[in-house]
Formats: sequence, C-alpha cells, structure tokens
Amino acid sequence: MSFNTFGKIFRFTTWGESHGPAIGCVVDGCPPNISIKEQDIQIELDKRKPGQSKFTTQRKEDDKVHILSGVFEGKTTGTPISLIIYNKDMKSRDYESIKNKFRPGHADFTYYKKYGIRDYRGGGRQSARETASRVAAGAIAKKVLEKKLGKKFKVIGAVTQLGILGCNIKNWNDNFIRKNPLFCPDRSIIKLWEKYLLSIRKAGSSCGAVIEVRAKGVPVGLGAPIYSKLDMDLSSAMMSINAVKGVNIGSGMNSAKLTGEQNSDEIFKKGKRTNFKSNNAGGILGGISSGQEIIVSFAVKPTSSILTSRKTIDKFGKNTSISVKGRHDPCVGIRAVPIGEAMMNCVLLDHFLMNSAQCKS
Amino acid sequence: MSFNTFGKIFRFTTWGESHGPAIGCVVDGCPPNISIKEQDIQIELDKRKPGQSKFTTQRKEDDKVHILSGVFEGKTTGTPISLIIYNKDMKSRDYESIKNKFRPGHADFTYYKKYGIRDYRGGGRQSARETASRVAAGAIAKKVLEKKLGKKFKVIGAVTQLGILGCNIKNWNDNFIRKNPLFCPDRSIIKLWEKYLLSIRKAGSSCGAVIEVRAKGVPVGLGAPIYSKLDMDLSSAMMSINAVKGVNIGSGMNSAKLTGEQNSDEIFKKGKRTNFKSNNAGGILGGISSGQEIIVSFAVKPTSSILTSRKTIDKFGKNTSISVKGRHDPCVGIRAVPIGEAMMNCVLLDHFLMNSAQCKS
Amino acid sequence: MSFNTFGKIFRFTTWGESHGPAIGCVVDGCPPNISIKEQDIQIELDKRKPGQSKFTTQRKEDDKVHILSGVFEGKTTGTPISLIIYNKDMKSRDYESIKNKFRPGHADFTYYKKYGIRDYRGGGRQSARETASRVAAGAIAKKVLEKKLGKKFKVIGAVTQLGILGCNIKNWNDNFIRKNPLFCPDRSIIKLWEKYLLSIRKAGSSCGAVIEVRAKGVPVGLGAPIYSKLDMDLSSAMMSINAVKGVNIGSGMNSAKLTGEQNSDEIFKKGKRTNFKSNNAGGILGGISSGQEIIVSFAVKPTSSILTSRKTIDKFGKNTSISVKGRHDPCVGIRAVPIGEAMMNCVLLDHFLMNSAQCKS
Amino acid sequence: MSFNTFGKIFRFTTWGESHGPAIGCVVDGCPPNISIKEQDIQIELDKRKPGQSKFTTQRKEDDKVHILSGVFEGKTTGTPISLIIYNKDMKSRDYESIKNKFRPGHADFTYYKKYGIRDYRGGGRQSARETASRVAAGAIAKKVLEKKLGKKFKVIGAVTQLGILGCNIKNWNDNFIRKNPLFCPDRSIIKLWEKYLLSIRKAGSSCGAVIEVRAKGVPVGLGAPIYSKLDMDLSSAMMSINAVKGVNIGSGMNSAKLTGEQNSDEIFKKGKRTNFKSNNAGGILGGISSGQEIIVSFAVKPTSSILTSRKTIDKFGKNTSISVKGRHDPCVGIRAVPIGEAMMNCVLLDHFLMNSAQCKS
Repeated sequence: MSFNTFGKIFRFTTWGESHGPAIGCVVDGCPPNISIKEQDIQIELDKRKPGQSKFTTQRKEDDKVHILSGVFEGKTTGTPISLIIYNKDMKSRDYESIKNKFRPGHADFTYYKKYGIRDYRGGGRQSARETASRVAAGAIAKKVLEKKLGKKFKVIGAVTQLGILGCNIKNWNDNFIRKNPLFCPDRSIIKLWEKYLLSIRKAGSSCGAVIEVRAKGVPVGLGAPIYSKLDMDLSSAMMSINAVKGVNIGSGMNSAKLTGEQNSDEIFKKGKRTNFKSNNAGGILGGISSGQEIIVSFAVKPTSSILTSRKTIDKFGKNTSISVKGRHDPCVGIRAVPIGEAMMNCVLLDHFLMNSAQCKS
Repeated sequence: MSFNTFGKIFRFTTWGESHGPAIGCVVDGCPPNISIKEQDIQIELDKRKPGQSKFTTQRKEDDKVHILSGVFEGKTTGTPISLIIYNKDMKSRDYESIKNKFRPGHADFTYYKKYGIRDYRGGGRQSARETASRVAAGAIAKKVLEKKLGKKFKVIGAVTQLGILGCNIKNWNDNFIRKNPLFCPDRSIIKLWEKYLLSIRKAGSSCGAVIEVRAKGVPVGLGAPIYSKLDMDLSSAMMSINAVKGVNIGSGMNSAKLTGEQNSDEIFKKGKRTNFKSNNAGGILGGISSGQEIIVSFAVKPTSSILTSRKTIDKFGKNTSISVKGRHDPCVGIRAVPIGEAMMNCVLLDHFLMNSAQCKS
Repeated sequence: MSFNTFGKIFRFTTWGESHGPAIGCVVDGCPPNISIKEQDIQIELDKRKPGQSKFTTQRKEDDKVHILSGVFEGKTTGTPISLIIYNKDMKSRDYESIKNKFRPGHADFTYYKKYGIRDYRGGGRQSARETASRVAAGAIAKKVLEKKLGKKFKVIGAVTQLGILGCNIKNWNDNFIRKNPLFCPDRSIIKLWEKYLLSIRKAGSSCGAVIEVRAKGVPVGLGAPIYSKLDMDLSSAMMSINAVKGVNIGSGMNSAKLTGEQNSDEIFKKGKRTNFKSNNAGGILGGISSGQEIIVSFAVKPTSSILTSRKTIDKFGKNTSISVKGRHDPCVGIRAVPIGEAMMNCVLLDHFLMNSAQCKS
Repeated sequence: MSFNTFGKIFRFTTWGESHGPAIGCVVDGCPPNISIKEQDIQIELDKRKPGQSKFTTQRKEDDKVHILSGVFEGKTTGTPISLIIYNKDMKSRDYESIKNKFRPGHADFTYYKKYGIRDYRGGGRQSARETASRVAAGAIAKKVLEKKLGKKFKVIGAVTQLGILGCNIKNWNDNFIRKNPLFCPDRSIIKLWEKYLLSIRKAGSSCGAVIEVRAKGVPVGLGAPIYSKLDMDLSSAMMSINAVKGVNIGSGMNSAKLTGEQNSDEIFKKGKRTNFKSNNAGGILGGISSGQEIIVSFAVKPTSSILTSRKTIDKFGKNTSISVKGRHDPCVGIRAVPIGEAMMNCVLLDHFLMNSAQCKS
C-alpha cells in the first residue's frame, strides 16, 4: 500500500502542501554511481514552472530544488535521495474567502468528507504543486536511463489538442516543442492556439488539453505479465496526475473503431532489424515493450478555478455559490507536459530495473 | 512488486495457461463471515463463457469453478480463498502450425524476446483465459460489497460502441443489457449491431469495442491521495485487461474539449442529500469518490487473430506470413463486459477496506 | 500488504487448510528457463513428511505435489507456478470433541476472537500443514540458486538443541544430518537424543528445539539498506514459521555478552580471497551478505498439543479443561529443519534477484 | 519492495546520512485529526539523544525536529507528514584517516562491495543516526495509539542485560527506567552496571546488551495470518535496527528448553476477563495478539568502533589495521531502548489499522 509513493523498485514518495513551508520527495531505489547535480533537476523543474509566459498563472514559484541526501561527491550512492523545494510567494489570504466552500471540480468536497479536515490553502495536498516533486524524481530517472540506454533514448511530450483545437500530428517537431510556451508540436497551428488561449483567458474561463508523450530507444522486453504490464503502469502514472480523466496507449480509444486488419501492426525483418508497418499498439504488446516507440496520450480537464460564478455548497451543508479569483492557468494541461515526461521516465526506469530482476541469466 | 497479483488489501493472484491442466486464483484479504457458494461465482463466470451465442467463439469452456480453501461451512474465514477451473476442450494441435511464428498484435513476439521461452499453445499465459480468474475474484468482491453497502449498491457494464457503431447512451437500460448477447444497453440499436457483427464474422475479420462500467451506491470517501487515487486504480485495473488500449473516467478524453464552465459539476443540497448537476467527473474528485455514480469506460482493440494473411516473422528471424484459423471471437470486447464489472468490484472493495484502515476513528 | 504472500520479487502465496480438499501455493517471479520437475519438489517435501520415524506424528501425509502452471516442456516460463497438494488421511472426527475449546498455546483463541469464525479441524489455516507449501516453494528457489550460483552454493539445516540437550556444534557433519531422522549434526549425541525424545513421547509430553540453517557460497552484496536488510528478512522468514519464538543471526542473543574485541570479525586478505577470522556476524554486515557463511538459528517451542490436561476456556466463555489426544509430534522442531532450509533458499533468491535490480550497471 | 520504507499502512520512509545536511522521514498513512506538536516528537528524540550522560558518546546531536507537512492547525490531515532534523556537530575530518579502510563489524566492506561507492563519513547511511527518524515516526504512532486505545495502552522498554551482567526481571520498575541513564529496570543492579560500563569505557572497549520492550493494553486480534504475523513484523522491526543480532518473543530462544506442560499458557475466565496463567507466548498466539502484554527482547552487539587495533583490509585489497578513535558509545544498546519502543509503536499501529481493514463488519 502506498498512498503517496509511486513505483516498485525505483520509487518516490512525495509530501507537502502548496502553502506549507516546503514540498519534496524521497527517491528510493536509484542505482549507485549515477552523476546527479541539482542543476540536472532544476532544468526539468523550470519547464513546469509557472509565470513564464502569459499563458500560465502569474504566480511566482521559484521551485529551487535542494538535494539533502543520497548523493556523495556528485554521484548517487544507492541510498535514498531526499529533495526539497521551499515554498514561496504563497498568498494564503487569497483563500480565506473560500475556506468553508467546496469548489466544484476540485477535491475540496471529497477530502473534507473523507478526512473530516483539510488544509484549504491553495488546495493543500490536492494542489498540482505536488507535481513539482514528480518532475524532480523524473529528472533523476532520466539521468539513469540516459546512462543505461545511451543516446538513442529520448522522452518527449507535447500538447496535441488544446481545447477544441487539434493539431496535425504529422507535423510533430521535437525542436519546435522546446521553443514555444504551449509545448505545441505543430508550427502551423501555433498562432491559432495562442489566439484561442488568450481569448479563454480574457473570459476568465479555461479549457482542457490532450498531452502526448513519446519514448524512443526503449529496448524490447520492459513490462511484465498481467498485473505489471507496462501500459497498465503508464496508464496508472498518467491518471495519477491532477485533472487527468483519460489515457490512451497508441491508438487508444480510437482502436475500438478499427478492424483487425487495420489494427494489426505487421512485422517484418529488414536486415537485422525488426520493423513494424504501423504502431497502433503504441509500442506495447501484451504489456511488454516491443522496441517500437512508446506512445501515451492523456486528457487534462479544464482548470476548475474559473471566474464565472458556480453553484456549490459549504462545509455546513448550505447552498451557496463561488467564483474563483486568484491567479490560475487558463489551461492546466500545458504544464502537464513535463509532468507526463517525468512519469514516463519513472515508469520506464522502474520496468528497466524490474526486468533485470526478472530475467537475469 | 506483484507480477500476477492485483490489489492492496483485497488481493487476488492468478495463475495458469490456456492449455495447461487448469487455471485459477488465490483471493486474499477477503473479510470473514461472508456467505460464498460456488454457485455465486459460477453465475458470474457464465456471463463471460464463450460459445453461448453466434457472436462469440464456438470453443466450449465449461469454466466450472471449485473452491479449495478459505470457506468453512459456507462462510469465509478471513483466510485465502483458492479457486480452480480445470481446462477442457483444449485443441493444442490448432497451434502447431504457428508455434514458431509471432502473431501480429499478440504478445508472442514480446514474451519470447523477454523470456526466451513461451508456451505457444493458445497464447499460454497471455491468453484472455486468465480473465476467468478475475471474474471469479470479482464475484467474491461483489458478495462482500453487497453485504457491506446494501441493496443500493450495483455494478453494471455494457458495450457502448461496437466497432464503428455507437449507441444512444440515454437509452441505457440495465434489464436490456442482461438479456442480449452483445451486452448492448440500447434496445433501438441492437438489430443493427447484430447485422454488423455477423458481417464482420463472416469476413473472418474483427472489430473493437468500447465498454462502459457503472457503479451505483458507492459511498463518499473511497480513494486515497495522489498515488492510490480511485481513478488511478480503476484505470490500472481496466488497462490490465487483455487488448484494452484506452481508459476514460467520466467524460474522459472528451473533457479536453470542454470549457471550465461546461465541465464543472455544480453542487447543491436538496434536503439532506448532496447533488451534482452533471457528472463529467465520473463520480471521482481528486481521486476520491464523491457519492455520484462511478463511470469508467475503456476501449478494446479488435481481435488480433483474423483470417486475412498478415506479414510477420518467426522466431528464427525470418520473414513469413500468418493467417489465424481456429475459433475466435469477432469482437473480444463483448466478453470484456463481465471482466470490467469484476475489476470494478475488486477495486471498489479494495478501497472500501483501505478506507477503514485510513480513517478509523 | 500480503497476509499470505512471502517475498518481494520471488514471491509465493500459500493457501489451504489442514482438513480442506487441498493446500498449495502460487510461486511468482521465478526466472524463466529453469528446469523444474515435480520430483525436484517432491524430494524436499519428503524430508518434511511425517510418519517416517517413531519420532514424528504417525499421521500419513502423502504430500504428493502437482505442478499446474508456469512450467512448459520441463522449463519455467517466467509465469506463475501453481503447486497443489491434495489432503489425505484427514480424521476430522478427532477434532469434534474440541471444536468449541481453545487449546492453550494454539491460535484457536486469537483466530476466533479476530475473525469471529474458524475452521477448527486440525487447526485449519493455523496448522503447520501450511509449511508444506513453503517447502515446495523453497525447492524451486533452490533450483534457481543452484543454477545461478553453481556448485559452491549449499543450504543445510540441523537441530542443534533438542529440549534441554544441546550438541557439540564443532562436530557438525552435513552427511550425518541427512542420515538421521532427528536432523542431528553431531554423531556423538544422537543416542542420547533418541532416548530423551522417546521418553518425552511416552509421557505424552513434548519438547522444544533450536534449528540452525547455514548457507555456503552466497556472494557478497545480497541485502539492502535499512528496511530490506538480509538479516531482517531472514528473521522475518523464520519467525513466520509456526511455533518459532526466537531468531539469531550468527552469535545472536549471545552477542550481548561479547566485548567489541571478541565480537569484531577481523578481516584479512589471503591471495585474492577476503577472509574473516571469525563469523560472529553470521555472514551479514549492515544487512548485506559479506561472502562468509550465512548462519541463522531459531527456537521452536514445544508442541502445544499434549496429553496432560490443561485449563482453558471454550468459545462461550466458560472455564473448562483440555487434553489433546490425536497423533502429534513430540517435538515439532524436528520437522522445522526442511522448512528453515526452504525459507533460507527463498530469501536468498529474493535478494539475489533484488540485487540485480538495484545495482545493474 | 521498500529499501527505506517500513510498514504496510502506517509507513515511514527514512533518508539521510550522518554527515549530510540533514536526515528525516516521511510518515504516510497516519489517520487524520490526531493532535501532533513538534514537542511530542522532540520528547521521544531527547531520550535517544547522545551526550546526555558519561555513558554515551559525547557527540552533541541536537536532533531538533521540524514538521514540514501533513499537520494543519495542530492536527494531522491524513496526508504525509514530513519530518526533518538538520545535522550539526559533524566532524567529518575524524573520518579522513579511515576513509579507505573497512572497519571490522561495520557495513563498510559490504556497502562498498555492493554499490562500488560509499559515503565514508560517520558510516554515511549505515550510521545509527538513521534511527532518529524511527524515533520521530514512533512518536507519531504513539500519539495515534494513545488516542485510539486510551490510557491503558503503554509501551516501555529497558536494558535487561548489560554485557555479561543480567538483572532481576522481577524487579522491573517503569518509573525507575525513566530515571536512570542506562534504562535499567532493576534498582538493585544499577550501581554494578555503572561501574562495569565505566570500566569498559575507560578501556576503550565496548559491550553488548539485551533490550526488552513491553506493550500493555493491546487489544486481542492484532496480527494477521501466516506472512503478516504480529511477531514476524516485530522481529523484522527489531532486526532492522543497527547492530541487532537476535530477537525473542516472550520466552524466545529459551522456549526450546521447555516442555509442553511448562510452555502452555493456561487460559481461564475470571468474571468477564480472560486470563492466562503465564506469558511464555509474549502475548502473541499464531501471530495474533491475545490481549496479554506483548513482550519482545533483542540483543545488540557491542559497538564495533573500539580503541584496540584490529586487522582489516582497505578498498584496494591490502591488509592493514585499524583503531577507531572518535567519540563512541561504549554500549550502543543503551540508546536502542527508545528505538525499540518506537518500532513497537509503529508495528502496533500498523496492525491496528490493518485489523480495521481486515475485519470491518
């Protein structure tokens, strides 16, 4: 059982509330002798950091990470790596007016009903601020995988749908993703997306998004039968991210519409290499990686904190209404890109290590 | 770590290959003093049983379950319940011709690459026959939940999309689902579906499906923060089913297209009851059940075993082709309905027990 | 959480009551491509089998094991191995007279109080019959370790104290252990032990024992920091065996009486080999194997079922007394030798596999 | 798998090295609405703190604990509680001279062989400093248990053997334990112990100890069958403490010498109360608490860091010798008393919560 721990061998345990003194995580099961610097983690955290463009919340979250243990003279020792990020720019007063109300679409109601108590400031533990810890853990997983799998290994995510606007997936461009604040993979659509998002923002409204995360250079054989399938763990990883409501592997929900002929990814040998004619499977067959690119996508619902007044109840059971001011992302999905990448890295490393344990000969 | 075990407190471990002497599971963590008869389990297994209509494989699988332990004088004792189903009607010869080939869309290739050995008969461990064990475990979970939660509790699943054909979800009718072999919830579409599926079958082709599973009468508070979210575990449960490629909670992937106003399920009090104006959340907020109906849907890809010849390779790395004869379902998704129900029951019971451990006062 | 499962990567789940139709276990996480025959397991089970000499119970337990899954054409496939042993020679009537009474020293009272129900026949789930499953799982672990570690690897256990009679540990002789029904390692004491035990038996009394299990040929590095220490898991393994009340690693409880000088096992290099002048540590330093022989010992309390009448209460809360007839071992500790060996094999394999996952480079 | 995590439902994950910036732990699974102040934890930490008498190391470890999360307005919220203790008074230079040598009896050799890297300063992760985190977690467990079980619940530990000197267990006096720096329970022996320990210290030598921990007011029914036995988990808990080499439950190793008549704790009813004539079982029958006092004892080996020169090797495989100066406890066992109490509290709470999950009706 692990309420706040993710993973089996490479495991991280996160802690902290958005308006407490700090948040952080303990990363356990990291192999020894991996070079890790705070800067390696900081780079990933900075991708997630808000306040970087007009498209995200203007809250300043410095998200400066500190390594407290597990690294000696620049290298991991095989012992737990404790990471801490002190909280700053916390405006708890923003939340005074809503402390007794349950924001629709948020976990306020369910946390209170379950525990009989909740830290209402900024969502407390339910705040997406927790995901900074995931990104930090993911940065470590990435370093390990890059050492173990070499340069061919790469994880990259993008927003492939912004509200009602899709993009042309064939235009996917890794370099472009890294250069625009919407993590859009398709240069041809970016202007339209920006316009759309600004209008959403201006209206005090919000929209959802679809994020796709791809992993190249993953060897055949990661995953395990039945209840430790790679796709099962990836689905679990993505669904654990705040506001995620749907997960696809490869063709995903769309595979229901295909025929057996369309869906079967034919296999052929070209020289020594095994190839597949298509990748409806998203790189996973029977829960085990096939050597193809791993492709996972997930939907993030629109930010629940909006300006428009919504009906709700308070903790005394009275009907009331709520309108959330404060500084919120018009589309939380955008900042989910580095989080999805982090979770992909963590799951892949976990299964990579597990594979060593299962099949050592 | 648990390659073949599902669950945290209420746990089941499955074992067995499609063409071995038997399959079965060990159910651990079941509360004591619950009345369980073999017949309670048999009823659920019979829903999944093939050969019951012209729409499923004509293999006969009797699936007669035996209780070997954990039940004394008709009641559970709190000790592990071992269930066994002997395999019958196994035609291993059917598989001789393909023993060295990797069927596209199946796990043949990945299992062989991972383990260096595989039981090729009927897919061996990767066979969907394993799901009979889940249905058996789910039958036990159902009995426990019915005792703990009373008559208002009910889990029911249906096929809501058959290949390219959807249905009108507003016509959902529990009784009708139980009466048609396609688990179709919408009486108005059934004729069309039957016609469509027969044509698929006749062509030796196959199609995918979407299954939706609903749970009524679930109390507020099931689920746990961050990495034991109820939706995370449900997603994990459904993705672990053979051939599932996508999972939605409530509005799921579609929530990406909604605005914050459309998506927020407004809350209001009517008398003593807490109500929600809509259920985009699928009954889960912040990973914790809200008291609304829990709604999960998932996509099952088309059966990979089709008549049309497909390119593939064999275990010696040679290019070849394959055409799968044998007796296969034109749409494996149909038989996934009782499996989805079973997984829903297991996850709900697991979280119900976990909730007692977390919040006992 | 795992009420009936032992292990982390190499895991086994046991099930079954002494007077149910069968007992068995599911072994998960076993590496692929290991040759396993039913006979390999049977050999180990036969060591534990009662009724083999006048020193153990005269119940006949055939303990014939069957492999139901996970082995294909004589080799493991990496999928779960299900083992079953049908129960025979069950005289349930023996237990009718005591069905409402709690036998002192047994788990009757606590099981009933915890669960509100219990299978009273032969102790039900609390019966030491469960340990047959462990021996079976241990036989598989042994096969894997022998393949991975080679001929230098060997686990052997012995009774080193029988009631009030110790033995001279310096006379330890592997071959002699295998040849006497008391698993006594010291030829010079065996006659005395036999005489003593027969007198205990004749009196309808019972005595305790100390069992020592040794493992040679274990590589340096098995174990993990802090909460997966090798000695922690060995202690846990042995304490899980019925009637075990104390566990020692190396000098164990006696180490309290040593000075730092006496206790420190000095290290020196002789050629390429690292040597230790003594082995107070029992082959484990900081929870990690040092390459020395692993030495674990544990105490088994005297059989609780004795002829002499003892005071007790019944399930209605009335004072009463009990005298257990039936066919019982005068010293259950003797049959704990193969069980201790099995648990040692399982823990070592588990840590061997874990080590691959932790430190793969 | 959980290298640095202890527990199943009430779980804590520790991190940190003795000479890093800080140590700490994350406590997960703590029930909500429990009052916790830093001072509650500090009181327990102060018991373990060195430098308090001439009998322990003169290192100053302030061990000031800070709560970083999980507590809101003085009460637990059900979310993870992160605790941090900054390291002070670290004299890393003390360790320069031995950085390449493996101290006999320490984990230096095995850590280096396993991981190929180690933080040699003060033992790094293997340092007993890690146990401060356990004491902190135990303080939280204690608060929860006191609320749930009421005033009759109490855990108290003592040193019952100091090197070669035992004590008269019948003189056990709770109040006296709290008043002497050796946690001695027997007023009649204290002078002798003090004299003995000072002589050990003067000689630069060290001695071992036996610690006994008792829990009163534990309800019947804690524990779970077979592989989650209460005694199994207690044994595991105690064996995970640095330098512990043996664990007893009740009569422990001594039970081997008893006859069935001597060992059986007869049961009788006096009024409404169930009584036992003796407590050889240490309050646990079949792995489940009987309502009697829980009694666990364990042996701590003598401090390995002694003044006398010992033979050893260095990391380059050369023979050498070592004499450890620095500031060390002549008997580390003494400071193990609060650690043993903490582990007892943690295991009991874990099983208390687990029991709710298993047997909720």
